[in-house]
Amino acid sequence: MVSGFPSLRCEAADLVIELSSTPKPKPDVIPFGTVFTDHMLTIEWNASEGWQAPLIKPFGNLSLHPATSSLHYAIQLYEGLKAYRGDDNKLRFFRPMLNLKRMSNTAKRACLPAFDESEFLECIRRLVETDQDWVPNSDSASLYIRPTFIATEPALGLRKPGSALLYVILCQVGSYFKNKAEPLSMWADPKYTRAWKGGTGDCKMGGNYGCSLFPQYEAEEHGCQQALWLYGEDHQITEAGTMNLFLHWINEDGEEELATPPLDGIILPGVTRLSVLELTRKWGEFKVTERYLTMSQLCLALKQQRVKGMFGSGTASMICPIGHIVYQGEVRDSSRPTEDTNSLAKRLGNKLNS
Amino acid sequence: MVSGFPSLRCEAADLVIELSSTPKPKPDVIPFGTVFTDHMLTIEWNASEGWQAPLIKPFGNLSLHPATSSLHYAIQLYEGLKAYRGDDNKLRFFRPMLNLKRMSNTAKRACLPAFDESEFLECIRRLVETDQDWVPNSDSASLYIRPTFIATEPALGLRKPGSALLYVILCQVGSYFKNKAEPLSMWADPKYTRAWKGGTGDCKMGGNYGCSLFPQYEAEEHGCQQALWLYGEDHQITEAGTMNLFLHWINEDGEEELATPPLDGIILPGVTRLSVLELTRKWGEFKVTERYLTMSQLCLALKQQRVKGMFGSGTASMICPIGHIVYQGEVRDSSRPTEDTNSLAKRLGNKLNS
Repeated sequence: MVSGFPSLRCEAADLVIELSSTPKPKPDVIPFGTVFTDHMLTIEWNASEGWQAPLIKPFGNLSLHPATSSLHYAIQLYEGLKAYRGDDNKLRFFRPMLNLKRMSNTAKRACLPAFDESEFLECIRRLVETDQDWVPNSDSASLYIRPTFIATEPALGLRKPGSALLYVILCQVGSYFKNKAEPLSMWADPKYTRAWKGGTGDCKMGGNYGCSLFPQYEAEEHGCQQALWLYGEDHQITEAGTMNLFLHWINEDGEEELATPPLDGIILPGVTRLSVLELTRKWGEFKVTERYLTMSQLCLALKQQRVKGMFGSGTASMICPIGHIVYQGEVRDSSRPTEDTNSLAKRLGNKLNS
Repeated sequence: MVSGFPSLRCEAADLVIELSSTPKPKPDVIPFGTVFTDHMLTIEWNASEGWQAPLIKPFGNLSLHPATSSLHYAIQLYEGLKAYRGDDNKLRFFRPMLNLKRMSNTAKRACLPAFDESEFLECIRRLVETDQDWVPNSDSASLYIRPTFIATEPALGLRKPGSALLYVILCQVGSYFKNKAEPLSMWADPKYTRAWKGGTGDCKMGGNYGCSLFPQYEAEEHGCQQALWLYGEDHQITEAGTMNLFLHWINEDGEEELATPPLDGIILPGVTRLSVLELTRKWGEFKVTERYLTMSQLCLALKQQRVKGMFGSGTASMICPIGHIVYQGEVRDSSRPTEDTNSLAKRLGNKLNS
């Protein structure tokens, strides 16, 4: 870093590591995101000095000014990615630059400062290396990496933050949902909207998630596990809970198709979503399409038994088969009792986990 | 509080006060929301024990777990209200229960726990009393009160928080905008949307504000101070920056009218908005209407010189006259160079400040 100028990059070469003197025991099976590893990565930024030296330090609380704009105006964003331990005992990230590029896009939308994605990834690598004993030796579990970026501006005027904190915490992840074997039940009601044109639905800003919680509990009141998010007068199907959505069906033209809504501004450009699209396009076994899907199209297809399976995709949850959908007071069952029900979801889940 | 049961109310009778040993000097003129008083109010809640005893303590940083869901999923909300020092030297709040009722509504939408509004107000009264020397002795300045409510759940799974913190900080407020005398210039572009049906636009959740920051800076790039938020295909005018919006005009039927968009789910039910409606209805000098207003209606009225004035209303900003609007590449001037331009805004501003 050139002295006297703000540092425009966060640089891995400046990384300082302070090791914990009290490492924790590694838990066996735990609910997702409740027990964290021994260390965390923090990188501070302020408008006058730019990026400060990255620091790996013992996991601990943040000290935040009570007026900090991440707590009042949700000037905050996050990412989720994973590191796996291979059969060769080596650690590998799953497509980390896709997450970090999306994080950069979200930072721009949130008016948080730009950071160098490669340098940041190198710091994350060093953090994972520091806590490498936490990466499970398992086919079904991995290390979940949560980069977080928050404004720390200690003032109530709504403006571009003059200070910010980029930090990373780690935890083990097995199955995101409590009962992984069971297909998810979804509640589809047009009265709630996850995201809208001209909003932030294509970014991973915190605000997208806080507003989804109430509908999620209304879904539970209707006996469902997740909300199926609809959009517009024609009840387009957009996302499933916090996941992207895929429909594997025989479409209106009689073609076998795997379809997911297009990235038109209200859909999160999921890394797992992209991986599913790339993988199935490579297979070339059926048509793979980014297209609008409406509830009336889906209901007709269910009635005509043209649905082969639906599933959600996400980093924490991977591939989650969708069972029934409650819509307009009726239960619509997407899981036909045939042998190949949602076989694509199982196949993709296995492939992406391997 | 009955021992062994969660406390369902936050109770003012349990209030503990720890006084600061290092009170700060009171500043003269400062930017809004940068210098805070000597004390703050905190009330902790958790699902197993309910509300804890309210505490007034020296102003200081919060210690938050790095996974806390207010920082990742914006499970957070705030309110803004004011206390004035009257000519009789007594302190008065401006309609505080309206803010606290709205806060309760927002808490419900955010899946944060219910609290007793009257007990909470009593705790706020005690905080203001503790820092009463900070309430300006001025017609043009007052004490701004910022209740904040955040999830403190230290876990990454997106769910109803099991712990939360309700807190209040105070600062002096004079003029919210730097140059109060100048009417605000607004940038109206349909490419950004502040809020959507089925979203949280009628609540004061943090996420509503974080997503408005980028458009706000794009407004500045277009030479304007604030974004004028449009909605839908017909470019309805909804809000002005973080304020409710009023149009004082001769309407299509030749009637003098004060109009503001109705509370249809995308408009914040502002306390100042309500006060303007009540006050002008009491005056009975012109028609006062909650109705949809589109940009084409406004542009036609501007062309026909039927606009008497536009202004924004909000707690921090009070009544702010709107000058010109940039829309579809053209500057539309809402301030006619006549003597009574925006005289209603001035009159309301004086009345609400008195």
